[in-house]
Amino acid sequence: MRLGQLQSMDVSLHVIRRLPRYLRELDDLMSEGVRHISSIELGRRMGFTPSQIRQDFSYCGAFGVQGYGYSIPPLREGVAKMLGMDRDYSAVLIGAGKLGRVLLEHFSEVAKGYHLRAVFDSDCALIGSKIGGHAVRSVSGLGAFVEKNKIDIAILAVPKEQAQPVADALTESGIRAIWNFTNTEIETGEKEIPVEDVHFSDSFLTLSYFLAQADREKSPK
Amino acid sequence: MRLGQLQSMDVSLHVIRRLPRYLRELDDLMSEGVRHISSIELGRRMGFTPSQIRQDFSYCGAFGVQGYGYSIPPLREGVAKMLGMDRDYSAVLIGAGKLGRVLLEHFSEVAKGYHLRAVFDSDCALIGSKIGGHAVRSVSGLGAFVEKNKIDIAILAVPKEQAQPVADALTESGIRAIWNFTNTEIETGEKEIPVEDVHFSDSFLTLSYFLAQADREKSPK
Repeated sequence: MRLGQLQSMDVSLHVIRRLPRYLRELDDLMSEGVRHISSIELGRRMGFTPSQIRQDFSYCGAFGVQGYGYSIPPLREGVAKMLGMDRDYSAVLIGAGKLGRVLLEHFSEVAKGYHLRAVFDSDCALIGSKIGGHAVRSVSGLGAFVEKNKIDIAILAVPKEQAQPVADALTESGIRAIWNFTNTEIETGEKEIPVEDVHFSDSFLTLSYFLAQADREKSPK
Repeated sequence: MRLGQLQSMDVSLHVIRRLPRYLRELDDLMSEGVRHISSIELGRRMGFTPSQIRQDFSYCGAFGVQGYGYSIPPLREGVAKMLGMDRDYSAVLIGAGKLGRVLLEHFSEVAKGYHLRAVFDSDCALIGSKIGGHAVRSVSGLGAFVEKNKIDIAILAVPKEQAQPVADALTESGIRAIWNFTNTEIETGEKEIPVEDVHFSDSFLTLSYFLAQADREKSPK
């Protein structure tokens, strides 16, 4: 089910979605040679209030020191740990088309700490060919592979029509989470399997709404 | 600024983000030959409450009829109009690398009603080559092109290091909105220019959080 629908959430989805942004900001600070920062300064950089930052970091078990702020290296580790980056999780990619290949290329950067274990496709012309060091496997073997290798996350980059059948195979094989690029909603049945949708058209049209709204306000019809 | 930070919002961002999903669902229903639907049935299909659906559609000027529900074609048009799909907006793509090319390929489907007017890149090896029917232009001409052609939306698919300089050129030239794939936040200065971020790593790590959280609950350390 989509992340917003999950029942078991101790921390709000808003907080969770801010964690990866903190991680990027802390990495930037580290690469600038900065080793500690106050919640006020970090808030100024990120457009958050200091109290929001202090509260968010408290979820990661990190507490600042009055007059000194946060020591960045342990704070960064705390955030990374919250995000599961220290857990050697594994992933498979389903869909070796153009989008899948772009995701594959960026994967090691996007998902630090994760292991991409295999790539699947249903296209006979692709099966057997090598993509990013992976020989493309037939999607018919997906379920068995996921089950045998206890794969954690599936990256779904197949055409819309194949989204649900592939999702069914994944959920039956014990997949734990799905990153969904198919531009359609998928059902995961009874199990509470988190699905994160990246729907390009939804994202674009949301932006488009703001243009149209500005024009409606300029010249109401 | 990011959409959540925009001041001038009559309708909440949650509602706005649901509109593209309604559009997809209504398109699916139309292609199934369905011509009217009740808020109860639509809610069942989409996992929303009927009252939420009625409220969302009222923003689009659409009201159902007791015992009949909504007539789908005008409802679909109302939602599409709210999203600016009838306004002949124009777009440019900056960054003709692999991600840019995938976006370009999907653009006509992702952004129905939009016109992609030009593609820019800073790589001499790409400038002049044809991609998706567009001759890649030098990014040095970006500002003048946006200004002269009154471009509405910029699709930013450049490397992280180039994100801010390109964003600066865009905002100075009067761009109205930015769809940002650079995996970094961009500043748009004083102007209230909506920016929609599609940060792959943030999205992936949000999903990863839920795996780690489930494992923490299973075996607390």
